[in-house]
Amino acid sequence: MAEARTAGRLGIIAGGGQMPRLVADAAVAGGRAVVILAMSGFFDGNAGPHPLVLMSPGQVSALFGALRRYNCREVLMVGEMRRPRLRDLQVDFGIIRQLPLLFGVKGQGDDGAMQRLTQVFESQGFQVVSLRDVAASLAAPLGLIGRKCPSEKAALSISFAFDLLAALSPFDVGQAVIIHRRRVLALEGAEGTNQMIARIGDLRRNGRFAVAPPSGILVKMPKISQELRNDMPVIGELTLEAARDAGLEGIAVAAGGVAMSDCGALSRCADEAGLFLVGCDRDGRWAPA
Amino acid sequence: MAEARTAGRLGIIAGGGQMPRLVADAAVAGGRAVVILAMSGFFDGNAGPHPLVLMSPGQVSALFGALRRYNCREVLMVGEMRRPRLRDLQVDFGIIRQLPLLFGVKGQGDDGAMQRLTQVFESQGFQVVSLRDVAASLAAPLGLIGRKCPSEKAALSISFAFDLLAALSPFDVGQAVIIHRRRVLALEGAEGTNQMIARIGDLRRNGRFAVAPPSGILVKMPKISQELRNDMPVIGELTLEAARDAGLEGIAVAAGGVAMSDCGALSRCADEAGLFLVGCDRDGRWAPA
Repeated sequence: MAEARTAGRLGIIAGGGQMPRLVADAAVAGGRAVVILAMSGFFDGNAGPHPLVLMSPGQVSALFGALRRYNCREVLMVGEMRRPRLRDLQVDFGIIRQLPLLFGVKGQGDDGAMQRLTQVFESQGFQVVSLRDVAASLAAPLGLIGRKCPSEKAALSISFAFDLLAALSPFDVGQAVIIHRRRVLALEGAEGTNQMIARIGDLRRNGRFAVAPPSGILVKMPKISQELRNDMPVIGELTLEAARDAGLEGIAVAAGGVAMSDCGALSRCADEAGLFLVGCDRDGRWAPA
Repeated sequence: MAEARTAGRLGIIAGGGQMPRLVADAAVAGGRAVVILAMSGFFDGNAGPHPLVLMSPGQVSALFGALRRYNCREVLMVGEMRRPRLRDLQVDFGIIRQLPLLFGVKGQGDDGAMQRLTQVFESQGFQVVSLRDVAASLAAPLGLIGRKCPSEKAALSISFAFDLLAALSPFDVGQAVIIHRRRVLALEGAEGTNQMIARIGDLRRNGRFAVAPPSGILVKMPKISQELRNDMPVIGELTLEAARDAGLEGIAVAAGGVAMSDCGALSRCADEAGLFLVGCDRDGRWAPA
């Protein structure tokens, strides 16, 4: 712990969901000291034993002040955070100073926005680190995660889906897709993965997807251009519940590129739901050829 | 009319919506004789003055018989038709004989399915023609269709969206996208364009898309690989109403590649809704540089 203090704390800028707490736990287990800077209106978890500072997303000067007060050199953004409306922000002077850098955020893909935010932190002397740097144990492993194994047909679909998501990468969109065989049922835009999964139920009800469940595979990978430092895609128990409710066959994620809220719990959850859950390489393979 | 009879009738295999009737009118105006083969459960229009035969989608022998009885040499499939569930089909022996060809339809993208169906007709001596062959007047023209002109920023977005849809083409999906600047808000999967447009309202309500309306542009083009003969994408008044209700800024379609149910009516409808409506080339331009 003495070493950790010398190296400075990790400032975890925390949005919604359970990831911020899990990342804090993993970082501490890895020998770091942390502080959770919880964004009001987004953070909805509990900080457990970790020090917590509640902040407004618009109070940039206060954020930098808190980071310095806690002797943070590294920062990590994690958890769900929507783009706030400007009129909802309680701004301080710090944000005005950052406007030239932040100005480009509006109307760009998530990737562009994240790069700008990274520049803002770096211009203030903070290093933006990745989930993999501080909590590698949360990244999906390569191979079967649950007990159920994808069929040979599913393997072909998964490979097709990885190619599709790679083709979308330059356009800064598309972390997830749902396919059956080579038919694309749903593509993720700005709605979020769970909302996209819910559409499969609609497609079944209105007859546009008439194959009996379980059918349809969710494939999720980070954009190739994506700065994994800031915005690693995540799956959690809600994802698995949504997939089960939509009658899907299973889930394939990019090993090392998608974070899992709790690997052991998700594995059990997949088994109970009858879903396969597998971490794949960029070609969609989960086992040596 | 004597000439038309000698050349044989055009058999219009008709699904839902107003397109089958409009295509029949346009084909007759172009000097052809037609018969509408209305698929029960899908066809919901009126045949007007055109001869009409009601068919079940599974009765393939009956369909071929009707086409021969009406002396059809050319066929065209038009209108909304979902993939029927096999158990909902009233099949006849004709479909059994076609199973080797039709077998591949299941689990493929729309494109693959359409190619198979085309082969089935061609194996029986019918020529599958395109909407452009028989009703060119229904294809979107190049240039402004309504009065409102897209802004310069909209022009950049449109060009970006055409590139994105072109990148999706090899995967047999993605005829439409909604973007704001370079941020992709929604991508069309199997849900249909109007369902996709409706998501923008959800994104506004839950704060994921916080830019005040009018904002967001719908861009629609046929897949590059798509057999335009069978499955030309269509926009109609419902599309414009959905776009208006979702607070969009306008609509750009591929000139010559997207059918419009009624160009004059859509132009007025766009003006009333305050939307721009424009036909573009493959680079997303609607006027000479």
